[in-house]
Amino acid sequence: MLAEFSIVPVGSGSSIGTRLAEVLDIVDSSGIPYKINPMGTVVEGEWDDIMKLIKKCHKTVMKSEERAVTTITIDDRKGKPNRIEEKVKSIEKRLGKSLKK
Amino acid sequence: MLAEFSIVPVGSGSSIGTRLAEVLDIVDSSGIPYKINPMGTVVEGEWDDIMKLIKKCHKTVMKSEERAVTTITIDDRKGKPNRIEEKVKSIEKRLGKSLKK
Amino acid sequence: MLAEFSIVPVGSGSSIGTRLAEVLDIVDSSGIPYKINPMGTVVEGEWDDIMKLIKKCHKTVMKSEERAVTTITIDDRKGKPNRIEEKVKSIEKRLGKSLKK
Amino acid sequence: MLAEFSIVPVGSGSSIGTRLAEVLDIVDSSGIPYKINPMGTVVEGEWDDIMKLIKKCHKTVMKSEERAVTTITIDDRKGKPNRIEEKVKSIEKRLGKSLKK
Repeated sequence: MLAEFSIVPVGSGSSIGTRLAEVLDIVDSSGIPYKINPMGTVVEGEWDDIMKLIKKCHKTVMKSEERAVTTITIDDRKGKPNRIEEKVKSIEKRLGKSLKK
Repeated sequence: MLAEFSIVPVGSGSSIGTRLAEVLDIVDSSGIPYKINPMGTVVEGEWDDIMKLIKKCHKTVMKSEERAVTTITIDDRKGKPNRIEEKVKSIEKRLGKSLKK
Repeated sequence: MLAEFSIVPVGSGSSIGTRLAEVLDIVDSSGIPYKINPMGTVVEGEWDDIMKLIKKCHKTVMKSEERAVTTITIDDRKGKPNRIEEKVKSIEKRLGKSLKK
Repeated sequence: MLAEFSIVPVGSGSSIGTRLAEVLDIVDSSGIPYKINPMGTVVEGEWDDIMKLIKKCHKTVMKSEERAVTTITIDDRKGKPNRIEEKVKSIEKRLGKSLKK
């Protein structure tokens, strides 16, 4: 399944960038396929692997913050592997043009 | 922590109501504090208990559907229990009037 | 259509409750049907009316804050009025029992 | 401000790809800075321009569908232009390494 998540530390002021760098370091070291965008991180894998990763990220932020809002969107489709690469390509193929990524 | 989740079966047409009834039956039987609203279900508890419940709901929907989009929003705040009851009351107290629920 | 929205002031620390009270006061005075829950506010109406209300709420928060994250989820279904009341009732009818609200 | 949005046609089965191609064609022709990822589209601009674009996309989908769920997440930060390019770069600079995009 595909999942996008983002973690917003609340009430921390200027330290948000530090927290996000910690989170992305965990994601990048996890071995799970991912793509970062300006609003969140998309990962692909099985439910338990993805949720273990997001929990680790969320708990890391909560070590330094009083409050965090974490949003997770899951797109689960049977029998469709490697959607993290194929989903955008498939739309580009339909449109017959390349899109900004 | 507080979490709101919703599960949208995609491509199933008229059977959405059946799926949502299955999901709410699981939530209502779980023993976890919850409140249903027209757009989702709010639950309160520890990370693992909440994610186990949402996984069960999501997997139940995927037994009957080819695809589902599940959204989870977590509001985690240190040292604040029973927010499922207190959060709205606290805003009403500030406003000095009761709100529609 | 139905829409749920929530506004999270980022970096403001303890003033979040003040901001949310301002927002809910705007919603309650708007005349638009709404229901508040512990994670957000559900409203029902036409696209332009709903977006005008959410913009007003968001801009009010931004008067006092440097940053805010606003999330909007829209569930638009043709020919279904009064879903803010009927959606939960319809699930309860299917289940044959009442749910916590 | 930055905003990510996604539109999920519900109950349409296999035609989802067609709808998403229509939506991305509208976005690509709009002139608004955007980046597509496997879970949504990130755009940058003023509130009214962004909401006008998302409304056009949503209404286009509703021409062919009975129901759609549209999610919008706004990250509004005072005095920070070109975040669609700079936000990821800023995290990479903190980490001292490049991330997958």
